[in-house]
Amino acid sequence: MIYLDNVAGTKPDPRVVEKMLPFLTDKYGNPSAHFYPLGRESFQAINEARENVANLINAESDEIIFTSCGTESNNLAIKGVANSFKYEGKKHIVISEIEHFSIQNSTAKLSNQGYKTTKLKVDNNGKINLEDLKKAITGDTLIVSIMHANPEIGVIQNIQEIGEICKEKGVLFHVDAIASTGHIDVDVKKFNCDLLSLSAQNFYGPRGVAALYIKKGVHISPLFDGGFQENGFRSGSENVPGIVGLGEAARIAKLEMDKYSNNMKYLRDKLINALKGMFSFLHITGDEKDRLPGHVSFWIEYIEGESLLLWYALKGICAASGSACSSNILAEDEDDLAASHVLTAIGVPNDICAGSITFSMSKYTTESEIDEVIKVTPEIVNRLCEMSPYYKK
Amino acid sequence: MIYLDNVAGTKPDPRVVEKMLPFLTDKYGNPSAHFYPLGRESFQAINEARENVANLINAESDEIIFTSCGTESNNLAIKGVANSFKYEGKKHIVISEIEHFSIQNSTAKLSNQGYKTTKLKVDNNGKINLEDLKKAITGDTLIVSIMHANPEIGVIQNIQEIGEICKEKGVLFHVDAIASTGHIDVDVKKFNCDLLSLSAQNFYGPRGVAALYIKKGVHISPLFDGGFQENGFRSGSENVPGIVGLGEAARIAKLEMDKYSNNMKYLRDKLINALKGMFSFLHITGDEKDRLPGHVSFWIEYIEGESLLLWYALKGICAASGSACSSNILAEDEDDLAASHVLTAIGVPNDICAGSITFSMSKYTTESEIDEVIKVTPEIVNRLCEMSPYYKK
Repeated sequence: MIYLDNVAGTKPDPRVVEKMLPFLTDKYGNPSAHFYPLGRESFQAINEARENVANLINAESDEIIFTSCGTESNNLAIKGVANSFKYEGKKHIVISEIEHFSIQNSTAKLSNQGYKTTKLKVDNNGKINLEDLKKAITGDTLIVSIMHANPEIGVIQNIQEIGEICKEKGVLFHVDAIASTGHIDVDVKKFNCDLLSLSAQNFYGPRGVAALYIKKGVHISPLFDGGFQENGFRSGSENVPGIVGLGEAARIAKLEMDKYSNNMKYLRDKLINALKGMFSFLHITGDEKDRLPGHVSFWIEYIEGESLLLWYALKGICAASGSACSSNILAEDEDDLAASHVLTAIGVPNDICAGSITFSMSKYTTESEIDEVIKVTPEIVNRLCEMSPYYKK
Repeated sequence: MIYLDNVAGTKPDPRVVEKMLPFLTDKYGNPSAHFYPLGRESFQAINEARENVANLINAESDEIIFTSCGTESNNLAIKGVANSFKYEGKKHIVISEIEHFSIQNSTAKLSNQGYKTTKLKVDNNGKINLEDLKKAITGDTLIVSIMHANPEIGVIQNIQEIGEICKEKGVLFHVDAIASTGHIDVDVKKFNCDLLSLSAQNFYGPRGVAALYIKKGVHISPLFDGGFQENGFRSGSENVPGIVGLGEAARIAKLEMDKYSNNMKYLRDKLINALKGMFSFLHITGDEKDRLPGHVSFWIEYIEGESLLLWYALKGICAASGSACSSNILAEDEDDLAASHVLTAIGVPNDICAGSITFSMSKYTTESEIDEVIKVTPEIVNRLCEMSPYYKK
């Protein structure tokens, strides 16, 4: 099996699992139970994890709160500031057309409370225009939310410049860094951001745990009311093993990210160059320079993304498809549908594009795996071309 | 170490951890990725877990959705129906005075949206009065939320009768069964309930995963907007290892609960009887008959719960304290504060009660451990009496 769907979730680093194990078995104390050692151990483990996560993104540890998934972090950021008494009155939100469903649908839900959302267009490479952003921000704007990197087309935004504009205009800035954290530099101070989402499963941590950076002084209203965990921002008994795993993933990423990301960039460029040389009717999506390491996405004229996906799966290659068909009635989840709005946003012509493919590598991806993808792709594409009425010879 | 704080979290069953391990290591596929086996494996594992959870509480598997903690389940239940278009207009909620903070504070938050909450009083044993309930329900009542068993004083409510009243009056009924599931019979059909919360960590499952039962036809508005996981009721990438662990915990509980609960009842009664014989100024809290297996709670005149807790901890015994002091400025979490409203509700006199102790056993608790508690308690209490000005000889 060649696993190239790491944007959907990475294989946890064995060191992460090892660090979690005691907290899944014998160290089961509730961190709220300070009175006995078993509870204090959990409490200390959470604090250590918090420091490691803060350290990875250049934050203070009391600016990190733990959540259960990236979707929760994104919802908490957007709805949290919208419902905070501190920012009452401001009713305008700015996002881009290629934000994740958790951002798009959070702002959609807020329209019931009178919020208006401006969706910035992106260019053919998936980048937003900074002048458009400046124009979109008004005196009524509460928050700008832009993703650092897009998981479907790999494009990395000019987050630093976006942060500077937000700071200058005096609006809150949230960064969805779920696809980028642990792969490229994520630095809340450089980004000038107020809120930032990251998720463990996207960089070799466990599933079921994520975090939200909340800059000191920024106020959010919690999604969960209850006890007093996470400074009241996120009530509920803590997922101690998960949090410990996220902390360890962050510690490892801080130390090793530069090295493995460089290797992933090399493999990415090798695969992109090979694909570009194969067929004139194969189109790479997303910016080729400002792009996640290990991220390759493309579409092929007249060939369905799902057909490609199935053929790759038959060859043991796991990839993702960005379906161009938003009416896919078989879709059971966001990934099945997610592509449509992104492909549409970057101007992919939907008369000749029937879906895209995303290969996303991990630090475990080897050159021979990429060579295998390069080898089988022409076989698969030629076969599908033969089956397509548009390619009849 | 003698661990008697199982209401704060149980030691996971080794079979649960074993079942989770593959999903923490090699089976890391995203359940949304149907196209390749690694994704389908996760998808199937979630379905199996859902069936096991449904089976434990006599529900259908499509009535179970997975969440990250009991607090999330409780918030989702209460805020979910309050924000659902289906129940628009009804603005009254009925709870009891001894509900968990996640219920109390969810209803408090909803007061911003014009909701009114009636808190039913409880008697000295912690039970609500069914006549009070009938009187509290009005034509404006949306939902009644009552906990099956209280983790601090162990009392079990007459949930079946409460469910019948709710059905008769045509109001929604939510049961917080977090402390009871996996310990005593929890049956959504017998309970006549529309929503029911349960949490893995309370019955030998992992931390970071819980569930909400939503009866077919009941509509809730999600707390998280995003993709389409959990039928849209709960977006976000699934915590597959956690869900697998919850499923296995449910499967085991279904098979073995009767046996271990009987043993826990025996140990509970042994400890209660021993404590009652020790000191005339020691008072058991909560109903003695309708009581969680393995649950023992009490207070001692003039002796601080926290002092007892520390002394027990010094003897290697882990317990919980229900502090009577709601102004405890050192409190960092719900458990530190949770007791005050419960002890007050059952009429414990706060001039002579300075906090309570809760011992909560697990299926791993042995008779020799309980014998040790019985042995050290007089030593500890006599020592504290000697130190107290009220007991000077």
